[in-house]
Amino acid sequence: MHFADVLPLQSGASIRAYDLSYETYGTLNADRSNAVLICHALNASHHVAGVYLDAQGAVLPKSEGWWDTMIGPGKPVDTDVFFVIGVNNLGSCFGSTGPMQRNPDSGEIYGADFPVVTVQDWVQAQARLLDALGITTLAAVMGGSLGGMQALSWTLQYPERVRHAVVVASAPNLTAENIAFNEVARRAIVTDPDFHGGHYGRHGVLPQRGLRIARMIGHITYLSDDVMNEKFGRQLKAPTLVASRTTLPPEGALRLRPGEAGSAALAGEEGASTHVGSPFKYSTQEVEFQIESYLRYQGDKFSEYFDANTYLLITRALDYFDPASEHGGKLTPALARARAKFLLVSFKTDWRFSPARSREIVKALLDNQRDVSYAEIDAPHGHDAFLLDDPRYLGVVRSYFESKVTPC
Amino acid sequence: MHFADVLPLQSGASIRAYDLSYETYGTLNADRSNAVLICHALNASHHVAGVYLDAQGAVLPKSEGWWDTMIGPGKPVDTDVFFVIGVNNLGSCFGSTGPMQRNPDSGEIYGADFPVVTVQDWVQAQARLLDALGITTLAAVMGGSLGGMQALSWTLQYPERVRHAVVVASAPNLTAENIAFNEVARRAIVTDPDFHGGHYGRHGVLPQRGLRIARMIGHITYLSDDVMNEKFGRQLKAPTLVASRTTLPPEGALRLRPGEAGSAALAGEEGASTHVGSPFKYSTQEVEFQIESYLRYQGDKFSEYFDANTYLLITRALDYFDPASEHGGKLTPALARARAKFLLVSFKTDWRFSPARSREIVKALLDNQRDVSYAEIDAPHGHDAFLLDDPRYLGVVRSYFESKVTPC
Repeated sequence: MHFADVLPLQSGASIRAYDLSYETYGTLNADRSNAVLICHALNASHHVAGVYLDAQGAVLPKSEGWWDTMIGPGKPVDTDVFFVIGVNNLGSCFGSTGPMQRNPDSGEIYGADFPVVTVQDWVQAQARLLDALGITTLAAVMGGSLGGMQALSWTLQYPERVRHAVVVASAPNLTAENIAFNEVARRAIVTDPDFHGGHYGRHGVLPQRGLRIARMIGHITYLSDDVMNEKFGRQLKAPTLVASRTTLPPEGALRLRPGEAGSAALAGEEGASTHVGSPFKYSTQEVEFQIESYLRYQGDKFSEYFDANTYLLITRALDYFDPASEHGGKLTPALARARAKFLLVSFKTDWRFSPARSREIVKALLDNQRDVSYAEIDAPHGHDAFLLDDPRYLGVVRSYFESKVTPC
Repeated sequence: MHFADVLPLQSGASIRAYDLSYETYGTLNADRSNAVLICHALNASHHVAGVYLDAQGAVLPKSEGWWDTMIGPGKPVDTDVFFVIGVNNLGSCFGSTGPMQRNPDSGEIYGADFPVVTVQDWVQAQARLLDALGITTLAAVMGGSLGGMQALSWTLQYPERVRHAVVVASAPNLTAENIAFNEVARRAIVTDPDFHGGHYGRHGVLPQRGLRIARMIGHITYLSDDVMNEKFGRQLKAPTLVASRTTLPPEGALRLRPGEAGSAALAGEEGASTHVGSPFKYSTQEVEFQIESYLRYQGDKFSEYFDANTYLLITRALDYFDPASEHGGKLTPALARARAKFLLVSFKTDWRFSPARSREIVKALLDNQRDVSYAEIDAPHGHDAFLLDDPRYLGVVRSYFESKVTPC
């Protein structure tokens, strides 16, 4: 969807002539009352459900939407009943206008010149998309993590346009520790010599080293300590006894990328000898433990598809989100404007956005006599749980939609 | 102290003609029974207590030893009673033989060629230092974090040479999450283009970008979420309303170093405009929150004095430590060799080496009918608490030393 009107931003800057990528699922009913808007988190997109087909009609592998367990025909958010909209946010890198695209004013790739966008800005842009689709009121707005912040912000910016808000694994703002993790990730990207002040596009390079580190840090915070121990523990990558260096599998060849010259060079030249009979390689740079292999793989994969400037923008939007800040840090008056009914869900092992953070929102809403349902799911998967197929979690959302959201 | 004998390492490699830097405090008694060995953690040294004086006899600023709250005349480990030894480990960068020094075989700076050393190797080297000092039996061996692992290892490698082991904020091995944080830090260093495969010394550069990121990650894990919120919260670096970019304090000038060209260049060129009346700069790269400023400062400071290869080696020693591994992962049989009496201390808010990890050691020692004292301190400071001035913590150690360790 193209938008020709200028969008003023919270920073005082503005964006004009922007596009928003979106997908819809199901059918908008006659009175346009069954629309559900899905807001995405850091690295997701408008592709929330379903699969893509190739030209022959075959399902493209790994093309499932990021919330395909949640949304679809007969699923908790049932697209036989609801008209679901997924939208890619401004500043992201999956089709909506962002740093990888051209600034219509200069004709140059935005790069670092793309303005800082906030959760409030995203909600403004999403509201214009709904206007264009002819939807005045949402049956529900819904998101996890940063997506949950957008859902909460919707109820404050457009209280009359939202009947229900579903806020999953979210928080009323970031803690110092949350900001700290974001900042380390940003510094890794910004100090990568291939970042070129955010204008790497003009130099024909990508700051993939920094993106890899950023993603590795992120991944640690998405998982619980317990699930990491269960999945990886102290298991070795190659738990076979090795007699000498020459029998080792070519770790470096598999995992190191051309850009990572320092490591590639080292893989062949490091001098540590291997103790016959030991399970270890006694190396600081080769993979010893499975968790290392997993993280490197996640970092590599991410650095191939995600834009570094987008990473900076989206983590900054997380940092800035804080509806209580205009009310002396008090969340209750901050949420007084909300008119929606709420479902909040948190996960016990989520240490990034812990249940205590969701409970802050619940309490502030109850202080305002709002209608709030809250579920704390005893899932072992940490923050990642909001994307996973947990029957208790999906059951809670299903029954909320069936009993409260479904238009009569 | 110079050592001319070859030290065989756990990896199968060996080191010859090495030096160990050490300091002693107090006086070794006539029967040499009052020696206490202090083992250091990741970034500390042999300088555990006291201060340094300049040529005029004045105290050098900030020259206190890293455990000066714990060790000294009249302190919990009382140097009027005990002869305390601090030693810098092999592979470290504070005077003992390590990657920054010359390989006697080649005449070249070791750099990446310095062999991987383990906790067991450090204990071997420390034992030789004690031999040279004429000390057969330690009144106590003591350390926090990685230092606690060395103390534990002492009781297994030299059960007859240790009367007491004081193991603070430690663990019987690293969890997957612990290894994950180490691995991200290592990747940040190794993929810094200035790392040059670990031979940055030959190129006249230092991988300071990587070291900064490594230290920032480390710092997050040393602090508790609570203490971060209390110290920094969401406080802004410059909590004054700013009207335009020209009135901003020169953040970049204060904190960016010459090596960080990408950022330095950016500080002046980023295009985000500032909303009059907003407390924010709306920038992805300038400091907004105090926690960011704190982390950048810690990263910068660390990258000025710490050696990158040492960081790799010491984090790897942490990863490898796992006395249970030779006993099918069972800690009780692994600790059966220990003869020492034990004091273990953990801190409730330490999520890096949580109390549960200390309790694993306590349980395994009790299973072996060992004499164990254990204190779980309700300190808010996270892992860092083991270095801080907490009266309950220091009181526990004081009473243990007074009642159990003091030679009669």
